[in-house]
Amino acid sequence: MGNLSLRLVQQFKFLIEIDKLKMIERQNKISDSSRRENSAEHSWHLAMLAVVLAEHSSAPVDILKVIKMLLVHDLVEIDAGDTFIHDPHAQELQNQKEATAAERIFALLPEGQRQELHGYWKEFEKGETAEASFAKALDRVQPALLHEATDAIVWQEFGTTLAQINSRMKEVRENTPALWPKVRSVIDKAVANGRLGF
Amino acid sequence: MGNLSLRLVQQFKFLIEIDKLKMIERQNKISDSSRRENSAEHSWHLAMLAVVLAEHSSAPVDILKVIKMLLVHDLVEIDAGDTFIHDPHAQELQNQKEATAAERIFALLPEGQRQELHGYWKEFEKGETAEASFAKALDRVQPALLHEATDAIVWQEFGTTLAQINSRMKEVRENTPALWPKVRSVIDKAVANGRLGF
Repeated sequence: MGNLSLRLVQQFKFLIEIDKLKMIERQNKISDSSRRENSAEHSWHLAMLAVVLAEHSSAPVDILKVIKMLLVHDLVEIDAGDTFIHDPHAQELQNQKEATAAERIFALLPEGQRQELHGYWKEFEKGETAEASFAKALDRVQPALLHEATDAIVWQEFGTTLAQINSRMKEVRENTPALWPKVRSVIDKAVANGRLGF
Repeated sequence: MGNLSLRLVQQFKFLIEIDKLKMIERQNKISDSSRRENSAEHSWHLAMLAVVLAEHSSAPVDILKVIKMLLVHDLVEIDAGDTFIHDPHAQELQNQKEATAAERIFALLPEGQRQELHGYWKEFEKGETAEASFAKALDRVQPALLHEATDAIVWQEFGTTLAQINSRMKEVRENTPALWPKVRSVIDKAVANGRLGF
């Protein structure tokens, strides 16, 4: 790559490093139940939810920022993995691992882009802006769509409880009430089918 | 879903239908060579290339439009599959299948969004606007990054020739000359290693 600028070398290094997100397995299964979902295709699906559901955000959002946020929000899993989500102690340790991962991964980018993309990740994690609130709600709605398609078998497999899911779905109820009836219908059906414990 | 609007019902139907893109296998392997790439994670990777490499587009682009175009550009493969790319006759048949697929899939969306997203797909296929030119170039650059990481073994596996690749990479040479040296270095190395035939 003798005639590539340092900037391009850094950009390509980052772009091949993040290919590893395709190797991070999530708990949820894809809609035909054939296998678990990975975090890269999950991020694509979330970006599509943002494009299609933008009008249902409670507050007006900069949709480009929402999409960029969703595209990068799981990159830290390359180092930190995808964790069991309902254990508060595990969550605290995970947060530390993810912050360290973000430092390493975004540092591959040239100055300027490093701060921009790292900034989207931090903003998503804090969840305080309209864009982050909407993005976080979509990150809850998308698994609900997969649970509906797969008869919520994964919830039963992991011994998930209704209380855990109600807590996890808080972002949808509070940030995007327009999308809550759909998620509630998935939860109600899972309860009726014995997929969620008490 | 008794209390969901028809609009939301249509949007959710589209969003779960497109989950099938995760089941479409491409020829290329992901960067650790462990398996072939699917078209959903490929689309995520392309959107990330757009975010990071936007400054290298020859003409100024509306980056939101480029990203939306890349997110939807492969949806037609849900019905039409991912094809052998170097055969002109197969390509013609494939184009017809893809146009039919686009009609079906985008029709799941509510009025307005249907035209918008179908429009991005048609614009990408025509490749005439600055956004489509840049998006098409990225769709060639991303596989080159994977070929570099996997020692271009897939090119050898499929008996790909240098002439086929030079023809396929025309979009990069012409639309984004700034990215061409990188792609050329991948091709040169593949030739040196006997991965590309003559």
